[in-house]
Amino acid sequence: MNSPFVSDVPAAQAHAAWREARAATGCPARVEAVRVPVGAAVGRVTAEPVWARRSSPGFDSSGMDGIAVRAADTVGASETTPVVVTDFEVVDTGDPLSPAYDAVVMREHVHRTSDGAELRAAVPPYQHVRSIGEDISAAELLLPEGHRLRPVDVAACAAAGLTELSVRRAPLVMIIPTGDEIRPIGTELRPGEIADTNSLMLAAQAREAGCDARVTDIVVDDPAAITAVVRAAAEEADLVMLIAGSSAGRDDYTARVVAEAGSVAVHGVAVRPGHPVVLGTVTGPAKPVLGIPGYPVSAALTFDIFAAPLLAELEGAAPRERPSTTARLARKLPSVVGMDDWVRVRLGRVQDDIVATPLPRGAGVLTSLVRADGLLVVPAGVEGHHGGTEVRVELLRGLAEIDRTIVAIGSHDLVLDLAASALRATDPLVTLASSNVGSLGGLVALRDGLCHLAGSHLLDPATGEYTLPYVDKLLGADAAVIRLVHRDQGLIVAPGNPLGLKGIDDLPRPGVRYVNRQRGAGTRALLDHELSRREIDPGTIPGYDREEHTHLAVAAAVSAGRADTGLGILAAARAFGLDFVPVAQEPYDLVLRSDDVSQELLAPLWALLDSPDFRARVEDLGGYSCAETGKRIR
Amino acid sequence: MNSPFVSDVPAAQAHAAWREARAATGCPARVEAVRVPVGAAVGRVTAEPVWARRSSPGFDSSGMDGIAVRAADTVGASETTPVVVTDFEVVDTGDPLSPAYDAVVMREHVHRTSDGAELRAAVPPYQHVRSIGEDISAAELLLPEGHRLRPVDVAACAAAGLTELSVRRAPLVMIIPTGDEIRPIGTELRPGEIADTNSLMLAAQAREAGCDARVTDIVVDDPAAITAVVRAAAEEADLVMLIAGSSAGRDDYTARVVAEAGSVAVHGVAVRPGHPVVLGTVTGPAKPVLGIPGYPVSAALTFDIFAAPLLAELEGAAPRERPSTTARLARKLPSVVGMDDWVRVRLGRVQDDIVATPLPRGAGVLTSLVRADGLLVVPAGVEGHHGGTEVRVELLRGLAEIDRTIVAIGSHDLVLDLAASALRATDPLVTLASSNVGSLGGLVALRDGLCHLAGSHLLDPATGEYTLPYVDKLLGADAAVIRLVHRDQGLIVAPGNPLGLKGIDDLPRPGVRYVNRQRGAGTRALLDHELSRREIDPGTIPGYDREEHTHLAVAAAVSAGRADTGLGILAAARAFGLDFVPVAQEPYDLVLRSDDVSQELLAPLWALLDSPDFRARVEDLGGYSCAETGKRIR
Repeated sequence: MNSPFVSDVPAAQAHAAWREARAATGCPARVEAVRVPVGAAVGRVTAEPVWARRSSPGFDSSGMDGIAVRAADTVGASETTPVVVTDFEVVDTGDPLSPAYDAVVMREHVHRTSDGAELRAAVPPYQHVRSIGEDISAAELLLPEGHRLRPVDVAACAAAGLTELSVRRAPLVMIIPTGDEIRPIGTELRPGEIADTNSLMLAAQAREAGCDARVTDIVVDDPAAITAVVRAAAEEADLVMLIAGSSAGRDDYTARVVAEAGSVAVHGVAVRPGHPVVLGTVTGPAKPVLGIPGYPVSAALTFDIFAAPLLAELEGAAPRERPSTTARLARKLPSVVGMDDWVRVRLGRVQDDIVATPLPRGAGVLTSLVRADGLLVVPAGVEGHHGGTEVRVELLRGLAEIDRTIVAIGSHDLVLDLAASALRATDPLVTLASSNVGSLGGLVALRDGLCHLAGSHLLDPATGEYTLPYVDKLLGADAAVIRLVHRDQGLIVAPGNPLGLKGIDDLPRPGVRYVNRQRGAGTRALLDHELSRREIDPGTIPGYDREEHTHLAVAAAVSAGRADTGLGILAAARAFGLDFVPVAQEPYDLVLRSDDVSQELLAPLWALLDSPDFRARVEDLGGYSCAETGKRIR
Repeated sequence: MNSPFVSDVPAAQAHAAWREARAATGCPARVEAVRVPVGAAVGRVTAEPVWARRSSPGFDSSGMDGIAVRAADTVGASETTPVVVTDFEVVDTGDPLSPAYDAVVMREHVHRTSDGAELRAAVPPYQHVRSIGEDISAAELLLPEGHRLRPVDVAACAAAGLTELSVRRAPLVMIIPTGDEIRPIGTELRPGEIADTNSLMLAAQAREAGCDARVTDIVVDDPAAITAVVRAAAEEADLVMLIAGSSAGRDDYTARVVAEAGSVAVHGVAVRPGHPVVLGTVTGPAKPVLGIPGYPVSAALTFDIFAAPLLAELEGAAPRERPSTTARLARKLPSVVGMDDWVRVRLGRVQDDIVATPLPRGAGVLTSLVRADGLLVVPAGVEGHHGGTEVRVELLRGLAEIDRTIVAIGSHDLVLDLAASALRATDPLVTLASSNVGSLGGLVALRDGLCHLAGSHLLDPATGEYTLPYVDKLLGADAAVIRLVHRDQGLIVAPGNPLGLKGIDDLPRPGVRYVNRQRGAGTRALLDHELSRREIDPGTIPGYDREEHTHLAVAAAVSAGRADTGLGILAAARAFGLDFVPVAQEPYDLVLRSDDVSQELLAPLWALLDSPDFRARVEDLGGYSCAETGKRIR
C-alpha cells in the first residue's frame, strides 16, 4: 500500500477538499425532493419545513368522565350550600365539549338528584377541559427541514392533517467491484482467488444508512473497462463506490480510472486502515466517486468515514452518530504519528471499570471488526497510549450488553466457543467473549484486572504440574481455579499420516515441516517440555519459528500443505478432517478471582458446566473428558 | 384512566408475570429459524452458531511486493557479503505463495542482477508471509447463536464460505385499531373524531425493531367483533397489539376482550404514561397480546417498554438499547410515588453542562415526544427531583447534534420557527430548539444558565420600555440584547369581525368571550398594561381566566368558535384565516449573555438575521418589521 503517489491528507482536509471539488464540478448538493404518503416517510428526511394543517385535538374535549357544565352556574356551591345544576351534559373522557359548556366536573364529585346534578364545590371555568390544539396548533412549525422522520414524527404529521410529506428520496449508491482475482460469493475458490465480500458488506452498509444500493458485475483489471462502468454508474447513482482489489498498486489504478472519468480530489488520507482511499468526481453528469481499498477493514471504515457523511449531506440531514463511552486501555497501544489510527477493541466491565482490549490491527482481519465492541481513534498527532490510559471509545454494542459480558483472556479452546454459543441460546443478554493470548498472557491479564476468566493449561516443567504453580506465583492466595476439561494434545497430521510420524521424537527428522504455537501458549510450553526432557534442540526442527495463535490455525496450515505437523488438540484436527497422533492428556482450567466465583455474571456459566447436555456435546467434539468439569480445584 | 379494576403492577413484575403466562399457555419462545442467503441476512438474528467452513485468506500469500524466496537460501547474507538467490519468484501483495518458498523480500531490498537477485540481509522464515487463516480459521466459531447480523458479520460469513445462514424469521406484529371515534388517516374529521395515527406509529415502531407489521381495519366498539379480530390475528401474528381508543373505561373493554380470547396476566402497570396497559395471551394458537392505551404518548412508550423486549426475545436477541448521558435538570420535577414516570426532556449544552428541560407530560401530547431529545425515568420509589439534580437521560438524538443545538427559552414567535428551519436547511447539524414559557420565564431561565437565548417582549408598565428594565434587574451588566423584529399585536377575531370589536375598550362588553395568555407572557403583560391604563378590572372580562400558551393556540380557540377574541400577533391570525384589530407595535428581542454573542454556536443565527432573503420571508408573514433585525441594542 506504500505507493509513492499516495499522499497523507488529514481526514478533515480530505473531507473539505472533496466537498470543494464536488461543488466546483457541479455535483448536486442534495438529492431531489419527492412527495410520499405519510406512512411511507419513516426514515426519510424532510425536504421542507412541516407546518401543521389542523389542530390536534381538533376540538375542546372533556379531560374526565363526568358532566359538562357552565362554570357560572356553579358559583357559590360549597359543602354547606350545594348548588343543583339543571343544564348539563354527561361526558366521558375525550368527548367533545358542547359550546354551551365551559367546564367539566368529575363523576366522583357529582350527586345526581331528581332535579339535576348537585355540586358541593364551585367549578372554575375550563376545569378538566382539554383545549383544542393542546398537542398541535394548526399552522405551527411541526418539524424543520432536514429532519429524519421517526415513527412519532409521522404520527404527529398525520395528527396535524398531513397525508403526504415532501422528503428527500433515498440516495442511490452504485458499487463496482474490480479485480482479476475477485470471485462472486458462493464460488469455490482456487488459491489466489478472493470472494467478493466487500460488495455485499458495502451494499449492506449503504442500506443501513437509509440508501438504495446496487452492485455491478465484477470488472476485470482493465482501466478502460472500469472507466466505462464508472461512467455508466454515474448516470444513475448519487455516489459511485469503486472497490479495488487488495493488491498493492491497485489503488493507483483506481486513481487513474477516476482521473480518466473525471478528476481526483484526494488520493491517500492520513487514516489507517484505509490510507489509499481516492476521493473524486466523475464528469458527464457530475457525481462523487469514492475509491475504496480492497482490504475488508479498510473498506468498512472508509464507508463510515467518507461515504456515510456524504450520503447524509445529500439527504440534508445530520449523519448518524455512534454513542461512546470512556474505557481503560488494557495494554500499551503504539500508533504511528501522522495517521488517525482506527483501533478495534473488545470491551468488558471488570471490577467496575470498562476495560478496552485492542484487537488485531491488520486491514485484512475482518473478524477484528466482527468481534469489536468499540472503535478507538488514536489521532494523527498522538504517538499511542500507555496501558491503563482512559480513552474514549465509539460503541458498536450497547453498554447493557457489555455489562453482561464475561471476558475470558488466555488460552484458546473450542469448549469456550461452544460455551459462548450455548450461553447466548439460553439468555440473549449473556456474552462470553474470549481473546486468545495464550495461557500465560491470560494469567497476567487476570492479575492486571483486565478479565474475569483466564483459560490456562500451562505446564510447569519443574513440577510437572499444570497451571497451579503459575497461579501461586502470579496471583497468590486470591485466586480460584475451576476445571473446564481434560483434553488430548497430539500431533496434527495430514490424513493417513503420510510421513508416518509417531511422536515428538520424529520432529527433527529431515523433511518434516513443523508449525508452532506462539510463546506463552500452553501448547508451546508442552512442546518445549517434551523436547527438553528428550534433550532435542528446538533449532533442529524446521518450522519451529513459524508461530500460529490457535489450534485451528495450526490445523489450517497442515490442511493447506504448508506444514506437515503441529502440536494441537484432537478437536482441531477433526475440524479439518486431519489425523492425530496423541502425545499427552492435559487439564484445561479456568482461573479467576476468588470473589468472582459467586458473582452473578458468572452464574450462567457454572450452571452450563453442570449441565449433562453440555458435557455430552463437549465429549462429542472428540479428545475431551468432562469427568472433572466444573470442579473447583483451588 | 382511573378504573377501579386497573392495578399498579411494577414494570419488572409485569414483565415477569407476562413471561410466565406466555410459558404457561404455550406461546412459542422463539419464532422459527429459516435459511436465507447470506446477503439477505443483515438485520436478522442467528438461530444457531456460525462455524467457519473455510479459512480466510484461504492460502499463504505475500504481504508485500517483492520476491518469494526460501529463507534457507539467504543465510549469511549481509551488507558486506551479499548473497545472490537464483530460485525465486516475483510477487505482488496478495499473491499466493508457492509451496516452494517460505519468505518474501520487499522490492526495495532486492537488487536484480543478471545472475539472479542480490540480497544484503538474511531473511527469517515466514517474513512478510500472510498466513492462511490470518483472518478466519476453518471450523472456528465465527458468531454465536442469538447475534443480530450487521454488514461486517455477513461479509465475514461469506469470507468463511457460508452462502446461507440459519436465522430467525422477522416476527409478525398485527395491530388492531378500535374505537367508534377512530377514523383512517386522511379522513376529514368531525368534532369528536380522531385520526388513527397510533396504528401508523406502532407499525413503524415494529418495523424499526426489525419486525413485519400489519394493521387491520378499524374495529368498532363491539366486544364480540374485537374478540373475533383478535382471534383471527393470533392465527398468524407473533404478537397481537390491540389499541383502545383514548376514552376512559376503554381499557377495561380491552381487558374483557383479552379475557374472552384467552387470559389477562396484568391489567395496569405502575408506569406513566401507559398505566392501563393489558398484558395477556390468546388461546387457539397461543400467542401474546398487548392492550395498548389510546393516548399517543402512552402508545409509543408502551411499545418501547413492553413490545420491544418481547419481540427481541422472540428473535433470541438482546433488545436494542438507547445510549444515555447525564444531564442537569433545568427545574423541579415532581413525580407521583409508586409509578415509574417517563418524562420527555429537551437537551442542550449550556456553559459546558448538558441541561434537561422537561416537556409537557400529558399522555396526549405527542409533540412532547417529537420535540424530545431524551427520556428520563423517575423510578416509582422517587418523589421527583429538585432543579439542578444530575439525572440519567436516555438519548433520542445524538450528542453531537445536541452540542450544536441553540437553546431558546422564552416567548414564542413564528420568526423563531422560521429561523429554525432556515438554519437547518443551511447546515443539517444546526438546531434551534425553542421552548415557550413566556418572556419572563425565558429571562429567568437565562439567568439560571438553562438556555443560550431568551426571546422577550416584556413591557415594563412603569417606564413603558420593553425588556431592558427586566434585563437590568434579572441579569445585570452581563447581558446583551439583539433585536429580532418589531411586530404588530392586536385582537384576533373571527373573519369579518362579527362582533365589531375596535380595541381593548370593547373587551368587557357583554357577550364577548376572551381567551388569554398565561402569566409571564409578554402578551399578557401588554394586555394588563392596556387594561390598567384604562382602569378596566380584569375580572369583568369573561374568559380572562382561560390561559393558552402560544399565539397560535389563541388563534385556534378563536377559529374553533370557543372564544371571540384574544390578543396576539398578526401572523397567528393570518395562519388561521382570521381577522385582526391592531393594538400596538412592539419590539421582540433576543437576550443572551454578552460572552455568548461571539460564540461559534450562534454565528449561523447572526448570519441568518443579516440575510436579506430571510428578512423578506419574515416580512411576508405579515405584521413584522425587520428595520432593526440583528441590531445589538444593549
